[in-house]
Amino acid sequence: MLINCVAYEDGQKISDIPIEDISEHINQRGRFVWVALRDATNEELNQMSLEFGLHELAVEDARHGHQRPKIEEYGDSLFVVLHLIEKSKEKTNALHVGEVNVFVGHNYILSVRNRCEDGFLGVRQRCESEPHLLKMGSGFVMYALMDAVVDRYFPIIDAFEVELEEIERQIFEGGSVRDNTKRLYELKSRVMVVKRAVAPLAEAAGKLQGGRVPKMFSGVQEYFRDVVDHLHRIDSSIESMKDTIGTAINVNFAMVAIQEAEVSKRLTAWAAIFAASTAFTGIWGMNFEFMPELNWPYGYPLALGIIIVTCGYLYFRFRRAGWI
Amino acid sequence: MLINCVAYEDGQKISDIPIEDISEHINQRGRFVWVALRDATNEELNQMSLEFGLHELAVEDARHGHQRPKIEEYGDSLFVVLHLIEKSKEKTNALHVGEVNVFVGHNYILSVRNRCEDGFLGVRQRCESEPHLLKMGSGFVMYALMDAVVDRYFPIIDAFEVELEEIERQIFEGGSVRDNTKRLYELKSRVMVVKRAVAPLAEAAGKLQGGRVPKMFSGVQEYFRDVVDHLHRIDSSIESMKDTIGTAINVNFAMVAIQEAEVSKRLTAWAAIFAASTAFTGIWGMNFEFMPELNWPYGYPLALGIIIVTCGYLYFRFRRAGWI
Amino acid sequence: MLINCVAYEDGQKISDIPIEDISEHINQRGRFVWVALRDATNEELNQMSLEFGLHELAVEDARHGHQRPKIEEYGDSLFVVLHLIEKSKEKTNALHVGEVNVFVGHNYILSVRNRCEDGFLGVRQRCESEPHLLKMGSGFVMYALMDAVVDRYFPIIDAFEVELEEIERQIFEGGSVRDNTKRLYELKSRVMVVKRAVAPLAEAAGKLQGGRVPKMFSGVQEYFRDVVDHLHRIDSSIESMKDTIGTAINVNFAMVAIQEAEVSKRLTAWAAIFAASTAFTGIWGMNFEFMPELNWPYGYPLALGIIIVTCGYLYFRFRRAGWI
Amino acid sequence: MLINCVAYEDGQKISDIPIEDISEHINQRGRFVWVALRDATNEELNQMSLEFGLHELAVEDARHGHQRPKIEEYGDSLFVVLHLIEKSKEKTNALHVGEVNVFVGHNYILSVRNRCEDGFLGVRQRCESEPHLLKMGSGFVMYALMDAVVDRYFPIIDAFEVELEEIERQIFEGGSVRDNTKRLYELKSRVMVVKRAVAPLAEAAGKLQGGRVPKMFSGVQEYFRDVVDHLHRIDSSIESMKDTIGTAINVNFAMVAIQEAEVSKRLTAWAAIFAASTAFTGIWGMNFEFMPELNWPYGYPLALGIIIVTCGYLYFRFRRAGWI
Amino acid sequence: MLINCVAYEDGQKISDIPIEDISEHINQRGRFVWVALRDATNEELNQMSLEFGLHELAVEDARHGHQRPKIEEYGDSLFVVLHLIEKSKEKTNALHVGEVNVFVGHNYILSVRNRCEDGFLGVRQRCESEPHLLKMGSGFVMYALMDAVVDRYFPIIDAFEVELEEIERQIFEGGSVRDNTKRLYELKSRVMVVKRAVAPLAEAAGKLQGGRVPKMFSGVQEYFRDVVDHLHRIDSSIESMKDTIGTAINVNFAMVAIQEAEVSKRLTAWAAIFAASTAFTGIWGMNFEFMPELNWPYGYPLALGIIIVTCGYLYFRFRRAGWI
Repeated sequence: MLINCVAYEDGQKISDIPIEDISEHINQRGRFVWVALRDATNEELNQMSLEFGLHELAVEDARHGHQRPKIEEYGDSLFVVLHLIEKSKEKTNALHVGEVNVFVGHNYILSVRNRCEDGFLGVRQRCESEPHLLKMGSGFVMYALMDAVVDRYFPIIDAFEVELEEIERQIFEGGSVRDNTKRLYELKSRVMVVKRAVAPLAEAAGKLQGGRVPKMFSGVQEYFRDVVDHLHRIDSSIESMKDTIGTAINVNFAMVAIQEAEVSKRLTAWAAIFAASTAFTGIWGMNFEFMPELNWPYGYPLALGIIIVTCGYLYFRFRRAGWI
Repeated sequence: MLINCVAYEDGQKISDIPIEDISEHINQRGRFVWVALRDATNEELNQMSLEFGLHELAVEDARHGHQRPKIEEYGDSLFVVLHLIEKSKEKTNALHVGEVNVFVGHNYILSVRNRCEDGFLGVRQRCESEPHLLKMGSGFVMYALMDAVVDRYFPIIDAFEVELEEIERQIFEGGSVRDNTKRLYELKSRVMVVKRAVAPLAEAAGKLQGGRVPKMFSGVQEYFRDVVDHLHRIDSSIESMKDTIGTAINVNFAMVAIQEAEVSKRLTAWAAIFAASTAFTGIWGMNFEFMPELNWPYGYPLALGIIIVTCGYLYFRFRRAGWI
Repeated sequence: MLINCVAYEDGQKISDIPIEDISEHINQRGRFVWVALRDATNEELNQMSLEFGLHELAVEDARHGHQRPKIEEYGDSLFVVLHLIEKSKEKTNALHVGEVNVFVGHNYILSVRNRCEDGFLGVRQRCESEPHLLKMGSGFVMYALMDAVVDRYFPIIDAFEVELEEIERQIFEGGSVRDNTKRLYELKSRVMVVKRAVAPLAEAAGKLQGGRVPKMFSGVQEYFRDVVDHLHRIDSSIESMKDTIGTAINVNFAMVAIQEAEVSKRLTAWAAIFAASTAFTGIWGMNFEFMPELNWPYGYPLALGIIIVTCGYLYFRFRRAGWI
Repeated sequence: MLINCVAYEDGQKISDIPIEDISEHINQRGRFVWVALRDATNEELNQMSLEFGLHELAVEDARHGHQRPKIEEYGDSLFVVLHLIEKSKEKTNALHVGEVNVFVGHNYILSVRNRCEDGFLGVRQRCESEPHLLKMGSGFVMYALMDAVVDRYFPIIDAFEVELEEIERQIFEGGSVRDNTKRLYELKSRVMVVKRAVAPLAEAAGKLQGGRVPKMFSGVQEYFRDVVDHLHRIDSSIESMKDTIGTAINVNFAMVAIQEAEVSKRLTAWAAIFAASTAFTGIWGMNFEFMPELNWPYGYPLALGIIIVTCGYLYFRFRRAGWI
Repeated sequence: MLINCVAYEDGQKISDIPIEDISEHINQRGRFVWVALRDATNEELNQMSLEFGLHELAVEDARHGHQRPKIEEYGDSLFVVLHLIEKSKEKTNALHVGEVNVFVGHNYILSVRNRCEDGFLGVRQRCESEPHLLKMGSGFVMYALMDAVVDRYFPIIDAFEVELEEIERQIFEGGSVRDNTKRLYELKSRVMVVKRAVAPLAEAAGKLQGGRVPKMFSGVQEYFRDVVDHLHRIDSSIESMKDTIGTAINVNFAMVAIQEAEVSKRLTAWAAIFAASTAFTGIWGMNFEFMPELNWPYGYPLALGIIIVTCGYLYFRFRRAGWI
């Protein structure tokens, strides 16, 4: 589905143009065309491929989707795959991964957004409101799109951190270890989803900074470095979070064992107290004929007393030892 | 066993040719020969070695099999070993690893398929139906074979992911921990089989992209990059799956401990309830002569009442604590 | 908030200058201006940006804060982000992370300290008291600031080491495993905070040592190497501490299991002793008519004797086995 | 002990020569001398050092032994240390590590075999039977020796794999966890022995492939690549085996916990059944005067019936829950 | 404290010289001065700094101590920090880390030994007894010192290996798991101490081998490679030991669980035996009026018989199952 298709010159929007006129505009020096598609059909992709002269393999990748994030050079144009991560609308605590495919040449930029809700109209507006930046051409638009995608990772990561802190509190304040385990496991899965979006992109984008850069990026080097820096920041947050989750799983597991040990101690203590009582009543329950204490008038209260004192003594000893 | 042996010129099939004529064809400019063998005998390999002038060490590797995936340059020709992974026909959940050895020169390509069921006839058909690509020569055929092999890894990986999700559900929904452990362990073994097929190949194929590439690949660079990208995608899926399996084994293990702890608590609770009952009956079972309550008309129901109330009280307390 | 703004020439302080005069001073050869801000407002940053001609992206980073430590070149000037770690005043065992943003050009240095208590007045004093060093210009001041920040990491790390040793003692001397687990987990979190401050800085600062160094650092190369060396020292302490904490968590966990096993043994032993006693009293508590021993005059003491001897025997056996 | 000392020219053996004549032969163009020593004495090493002009440090290393595998250049000659791993003759499941030190120059090759049983006579025979290869000189002999050493690692690794599979079967079929743990631990130790032989050699030999290779290896580059490839194959088997052993240790450990949990459940179940029985008999064992059911003619069988029914009910419930 | 200060020329000792004459000697071509200090005071360091023209930062590092091992170039001189590890004299199983700071120029070498017992007199003697090596100058002396330091690591590592084997035996032969855990933990700490001494040095010394080497080392390249090789050998021993200790901690931990499981089984078995006995005596202890067996003359021995047979049967069943 076509969202919009606009020609720009010297940082200024000329006009919305029909798709058929694209090739005319891009042949004019100093002008570039920015097309945005959403869940593009085969026909739309083929049409674009003809208008812009896209490489067969890149179009194939855009068609099939489910690529890992990457930046590929085809001659003097670039094919970029970005993952767009959104909180799932159906399930809480689930992530939805969409894809943005971007084709960039020195005189055009084509973005194809697949399987994701939020669009990039804001990006276009911001670009158009800063003509002195938009003047840098398609390279700057590429930066603006990438920056927008990467900026959307931050709240996801922040939410992870809040959740992890909440789980940590549960662990040490005695929440259900079963739930904690499950939540940590699921959190790790989601962290891995972001990791798979960020790590290959950071690596690929890093290469856009080196000496040999496609011409259209020569003026926006510092902007890309900024994006790469953001990606590294996210990546290092993720790494540290993975590490922490691993430790938290272990610690949570230790808590199971610690609780288990405490229950065991308590069991042992009460078992000992009752066993003592049972031993005494067993003795005085024997049927020997000559058991003088059975005939004492105060034998019974004495026996009860002995039992209570013994059990009481054990109770206080165990209490002092912290077992009960 | 010879499958087929065909000469091509300018992207068009000339004809099937007998093995003896190979050397004539490969000496004609612009022509190349594509031979496919299956479970080649020593004689066949020797014959091929003579016709194409293959390097002794490469032939030796093809003869012995069980090589790890690799791409080796011998002068201006290449020797490539690929692992072909198939689901075992005999055992469920087992993988069968076959091998494809490919010898490539600028005017010939020889593929030897060992110990695997599925052939590459489809690859030949697709190549022959796209003469504008086949025109690129043996380098493109090499790409087509490699792409076919790598494409067959994807359903394997997908099946792993489905299985892992199924095991995860079992873990958190209380399936047999023993079975889960075994399944995770076996899944990991199979993941490692694919890893051993993918990782060395990704490394070796990556070198085909760099500056100094054998002449026959100069036109198909971008195609190889596509394969390498697929390999990296698989490799990163595998890495993330290994990580997840490791965590799942730990989590499953934690579940054992959690269940154990719950059983312990329940044991402790019931033991306490019965111990209380036993303590009372023990007392009234003693044989002291003067135990006034024994002679009360309602002593017995009172005693039963006390026992039931006490046990009931304990039961509700344990229930509230979540132990029973 | 402006802390101070001073012009220097030839290693000597000329005078405090008003912000408006900055541009005059920095245009004079051999002179540089050192400005220190604290929790700078937007207006202050904009003003500085105008006076020094700072890059928009760098100013943006300084404005938003929460960057990871980095050193970025913008043309012939540098933008440096340092993390300043302080012990939290509110909570024991918590760390507070502030930020120092430094903009350096060959004729100016601007430091913006955000969210941290301790300032860098000492650095300025020490620099001014060593004119032969300060003569090297803004590069040396950059070094002096960085050195001051890094030096403040050492006591933090030392405190970690003391704490870790204390926890280790607790582990082996039988302190509460629950507390130990929690303390180890929290210590690890704090170690990670320092790690995140140190590791990216070490990497970035390492690049200032290589061949292609901004002009203003050409004379202070060896000083920067010294800082990098300190960073590496801290980093390797951190790595080794992370490793040790990991092992300590495991060992602490093992201690839980060991204690648990000891409690189990003790439980088993006492259960066996009481069970023996109960078995005997059970037998002599049966109501058979013909149980000759019940009528023996010394039957009862004999029975008591048998019970005591049996239990005593078991007690000593268990004692010898180390179970009790 | 001298094993043999032979001069070769043009791939053909000239004759066995006495040690004193070595220097004469090696000064003749196109000729090289191949000496094999076994557990060389100091005198032999000194003599060789004089004849071939070996470097003091290399001779020192050969004298002391217990070096890690390495390939060192001394001027235009090489000193190579290889580990030879043999199954111990005295102890089952133990490995014996011998050492082969090789000194190679363009006109000589000297191998010193220390502390190992199996010799390299087969290597010499195979070399002499292929004069077209032996013609390549000392570089090829070096390759032949290295290949022979590396080939002997394969059966060791295969035996490890068989053993690991056997242990895996034991783990899942309920063999002794104690034995499994010990066997896994010992297997890992042995794997590490091979790792220490293979990893440094793979690294060092990899350098013999690069651009700047000693002259004597210029013709045998592809042969060395073959050896390096074998080393990488072994190394990746080892890495994957280490990983698998680690997982197996964890899984085996989980099995302990699972068995433990099952025993606990069974204990709990039987304890509950007997406790129920004890509660009833306790009640009817009380000595209250007015317990009407005690005087019923069928009171006793009724009581027995109640007890049996209750216990039976519990038994079947636990059975259904899989606890018994 | 000055140990000695000697001038050498052409590999021969000229004479002991007073500190004041150093500058005279080092200005004579082909002569170099070798000074050894121990626990140098500030004054001594200042004096040396003046005589040799040492760099301020290097002197600062030597003064403060507690540096990590490193090799730093200052112009055409080097500053080297080595860790000297000694077994502690006060505590068994503790290590004492001293430091050797070495300043090397082409015409001088100054070693400052801090906080360590054993000196380097042997190094000087060995150097003086081999004038053909000492002739190489200060570079060779640097090598000799480094070699001496590194050689002292080997017995430490060997002692670790002996200790680890001893602990392994304890683990599998049933020694105290608590002690084993503690010993493994402490061993790991000590291994880390050596790691911190070796790893940075290996890295730094490796750089002395590359193409661009300070002039004074050009003749002793191969000697330094030997030291680096030793460092790598130690480092790989350490890595493998760390790995093994990690596994041993896990295995030891598994042993706890295995013992625990065995105790549990035994507990369960005995509990079942006694519970059976108690169930029978409970039944015959009930006070029903009509319990015919109570009046049988042989009821009591029959009852005892039933109890003994039942318990005996259970005992042998448990025995066969390996639970008792």
